[in-house]
Amino acid sequence: MHSYIDIRSLNELPKIEAISGIQTMRTIRWDSGTITTIDQTLLPVECRAIECKTVHTLCEAIVSLRIRGAPALGAAGGYGVALAAHTSAASTLREFMRDLEIESDRIRRTRPTAINLTWGVDRVMDAVRRAGSIDEARRIALFEATAIADEDVERNTRLSKHGRALFEDGDTVLTHCNAGRLACVDVGTALGVIRAAVDEGKEISVISCETRPLNQGSRLTVWELMQDKIPVTLIPDSAAGLMMRKGLIDKVIVGADRITRDAVFNKIGTYTHSVLAKEHKIPFYVAAPISTFDPTGLERDITIEERDPDELRRIHDVMLAPADAAVYNPAFDATPVENVTAVITEDGVVYPNESESWNDLFS
Amino acid sequence: MHSYIDIRSLNELPKIEAISGIQTMRTIRWDSGTITTIDQTLLPVECRAIECKTVHTLCEAIVSLRIRGAPALGAAGGYGVALAAHTSAASTLREFMRDLEIESDRIRRTRPTAINLTWGVDRVMDAVRRAGSIDEARRIALFEATAIADEDVERNTRLSKHGRALFEDGDTVLTHCNAGRLACVDVGTALGVIRAAVDEGKEISVISCETRPLNQGSRLTVWELMQDKIPVTLIPDSAAGLMMRKGLIDKVIVGADRITRDAVFNKIGTYTHSVLAKEHKIPFYVAAPISTFDPTGLERDITIEERDPDELRRIHDVMLAPADAAVYNPAFDATPVENVTAVITEDGVVYPNESESWNDLFS
Repeated sequence: MHSYIDIRSLNELPKIEAISGIQTMRTIRWDSGTITTIDQTLLPVECRAIECKTVHTLCEAIVSLRIRGAPALGAAGGYGVALAAHTSAASTLREFMRDLEIESDRIRRTRPTAINLTWGVDRVMDAVRRAGSIDEARRIALFEATAIADEDVERNTRLSKHGRALFEDGDTVLTHCNAGRLACVDVGTALGVIRAAVDEGKEISVISCETRPLNQGSRLTVWELMQDKIPVTLIPDSAAGLMMRKGLIDKVIVGADRITRDAVFNKIGTYTHSVLAKEHKIPFYVAAPISTFDPTGLERDITIEERDPDELRRIHDVMLAPADAAVYNPAFDATPVENVTAVITEDGVVYPNESESWNDLFS
Repeated sequence: MHSYIDIRSLNELPKIEAISGIQTMRTIRWDSGTITTIDQTLLPVECRAIECKTVHTLCEAIVSLRIRGAPALGAAGGYGVALAAHTSAASTLREFMRDLEIESDRIRRTRPTAINLTWGVDRVMDAVRRAGSIDEARRIALFEATAIADEDVERNTRLSKHGRALFEDGDTVLTHCNAGRLACVDVGTALGVIRAAVDEGKEISVISCETRPLNQGSRLTVWELMQDKIPVTLIPDSAAGLMMRKGLIDKVIVGADRITRDAVFNKIGTYTHSVLAKEHKIPFYVAAPISTFDPTGLERDITIEERDPDELRRIHDVMLAPADAAVYNPAFDATPVENVTAVITEDGVVYPNESESWNDLFS
């Protein structure tokens, strides 16, 4: 279904120059009608890129988490519309736009909780609506999608520099899931901040929670940080409490999939870490670009995606539970903003408990 | 190494009559020089019993968690000394006792945090020291080991009846790891209480945390409760916070591997659940026989067993992390007694925060 390209590490990805001139490697990119992205389900065993030449293939890649991570999904959404534009066989602009609406909707529905995906799709769709011809629409779609990806790199670079001041030399920092280069076009959000702190000479050790059931912590975060030679130790999600109680964690930093005025939606387990951090008086930071903010929704309005029960019942052919076990497998949880010390964005650090600057972000 | 006996379910195990006349199935038993026990590492795929004919085989079964669970380890420790007595080739009582000391020590060292194992070994060793001959020593060892196993069934039956009054019709109860029949000779501690509540007509639903990294929740607790037709839903450990925040959990009940005056040692993750329960004002119960109490130790004195890093890096042949990832894999954590609403024992329910009755248990 997907065609694979063998690569050995992220450092083998071609460097692409962003609008600003920053040269970076890209975990998702566009090359003459093809979206190329790392298949994150194969890591850490294999580092392979897949090529998506149709929206159907892209949607499958999003649903099965070959592509994942809030900011990367923003780019995937944008490129997805460009791909729909590229592959539409419509002969009139009206038919073409109808194709795009259908395909956009299909992309949006793959991950309902992740706001960036919808944000990326909508941004490109809004731009395309200005086009006077199919050709122009295709050019605009690709231009706008490329801008999203380029801006993601620049946003995360700025975000990382804003965040690094919050970390001190010698800190041990707990993170959950993967908010790294793999979750973005490049740089990372939570891990971008850690990298930026390391780059300015601070010694930072990372504690990576394995992040059940799909182990993005053990498979992706540990792998990514080991490639960068940043010290990282893998723990089961359930050991965060013990480590905090023993005074072994100085700070917590995570990414986010959606931020409403009252809550941060992120990988299941984030809320538990926030309660533990509060109990142990440990700062709890969220790193996320402004595109993650949901200007209108509140926690009660957001549907939390429930995933396949088999994610808990088995790993490949290994049965972890009876095949007919009842399962509750929510992909995300909501952390009330009262538990969040600060949110790090590309425009600076905001403190949810200072209600004026916080509320400005939602107006 | 082990010889296997195929059985299809716990209900196929032979019923054994305890001293009191209670007929029960046994997850660990002695039959003419052989210890037979369920190999819990094969569940839920296969329900098979293994035979241990040497102390070496028994120790391997304990280290690799074929036999596990605090009360079951008490019986395994006792039967282990009986097996050492049965297999010793010594010709004088002095040599025989030296053999027993060496083998006892080997058994004790397999799981350093689990107090019941040492308690079972010590109880049989203390009895054997009264013997005037090798033959008498063998008889005493087997008698005492059998008494431990028989008493375990009776203790857990009494414990379960004391505990069930704490649960109400319609309760949804979260549990962690496996404190069921598989963790005991029979009946169970935490799950024994739930069974006793169900037996008196209460409708109880159980939420079973999968309990990483060895998945005793998904592999054992879910399987065991499904066999008894008690409604059970499997969740990742990290979803407990979300469920409590949504008001979906009425009570928490867990077992214990050691209880000191100041802390309850139990499977890694228990402490986190206790903090979440406190945050959400949910009762947090521990079910454990008196043999779990450590009369002299305090939390700071207890070594927490660290297990093989590969438990987090892989499941059978499936790699979950880079093969050389640094790992911290503690088997247990300590929950301060301030976080525990009540401890359910065979002699009744005790409240750690009423210091007089609590302190009496350690005098």
